[in-house]
Amino acid sequence: MKFYDCTSAPSPRRVRVFLAEKGIELPTVQVDLAKGEQYGEAFQALNPRCTVPVLQLDDGSCLTESLAICSYLESVYPSPALLGHDARQRALILEWNARIESEGLLAVAEAFRNRSRGFQNRALTGPQPYAQLPQLVERGRQRAQLFLDSLDAHLADTPYVAGGHYSLADITALVAVDFAGWIKLAIGERKHLGRWHRSVSARPSATA
Amino acid sequence: MKFYDCTSAPSPRRVRVFLAEKGIELPTVQVDLAKGEQYGEAFQALNPRCTVPVLQLDDGSCLTESLAICSYLESVYPSPALLGHDARQRALILEWNARIESEGLLAVAEAFRNRSRGFQNRALTGPQPYAQLPQLVERGRQRAQLFLDSLDAHLADTPYVAGGHYSLADITALVAVDFAGWIKLAIGERKHLGRWHRSVSARPSATA
Repeated sequence: MKFYDCTSAPSPRRVRVFLAEKGIELPTVQVDLAKGEQYGEAFQALNPRCTVPVLQLDDGSCLTESLAICSYLESVYPSPALLGHDARQRALILEWNARIESEGLLAVAEAFRNRSRGFQNRALTGPQPYAQLPQLVERGRQRAQLFLDSLDAHLADTPYVAGGHYSLADITALVAVDFAGWIKLAIGERKHLGRWHRSVSARPSATA
Repeated sequence: MKFYDCTSAPSPRRVRVFLAEKGIELPTVQVDLAKGEQYGEAFQALNPRCTVPVLQLDDGSCLTESLAICSYLESVYPSPALLGHDARQRALILEWNARIESEGLLAVAEAFRNRSRGFQNRALTGPQPYAQLPQLVERGRQRAQLFLDSLDAHLADTPYVAGGHYSLADITALVAVDFAGWIKLAIGERKHLGRWHRSVSARPSATA
């Protein structure tokens, strides 16, 4: 297997933290997103969507979605389990992973990509150009703030995002909360979110 | 278990088709989205996100994401398997399910919700109002067209979306392709997509 990464980007960080929690080391290729390497011919041949992370399997085929990559790694390296032990845990982890993607990661990306100079005509990921829309900067911020509020409320009742155990849902949430810092949204007075964030950030995997 | 549905809506159709393929019948409650029942106090107590599908488990807790619901049902009713038999199949199904959600379902929803009169201030799902943005109508259409093109190209090489077997990825794709009809995008000359669509639409589950 080979892992295509970009250490400065939030999306592949989900896989990096997952690998670190499992204690897996993979041959890794850095893709320089700042230089536009993801749009180059060589990388597009691997992943026409022009995104990282990518996990290339031994047969040469590629997975390009974090959840698919983590599912594959969980099958090959089952311990420690990060995708749940039973029906309910598995479902809850997928539930929160999906919610955090749409309410957290996509919201922050909406605010960030529609404003930053480096993302002109790159408001969405992929090879197609999409113009920045100023209205989406404020909308994305508002959505991201609501995401932080709702995650704070949720964490009042549970030690980890999907229950009693650290899981992929915590990884996705950690990446989303740290990504919110890119649009200057801090945890602030949200005390349950603060408690959880200190706990998951203290794990060695968080520096991945 | 109890299933909260709305027979006219695309999102819960993913679960309806999944249930039909498994031969499962669940006690079902219809939520009238056209009348705004999803914003009512009773439904918000179940799902503060104001969306369907919802699967209420026997302990009273609720799953609100299609993938989480289908994962839970797959655990309880494993046969026929719709989420894969081995590491690679499971990962490929999750890969395509996620791609079709972001490139297909979200793209069509972007075009549809930002234009329809019934969705004024409801450009995004959930209890928060979000203004319609005319620019997103054209952007959503363009994204949805590219989605149909790329799915057509992909289906040149594979009988089903995630390989040799019908799976959740086909269900999500069927719902997305039919949803594209709501913004007047047809399969047209895309012959591989047409062949696949005829095949999956001929299954009894497709009328669910």
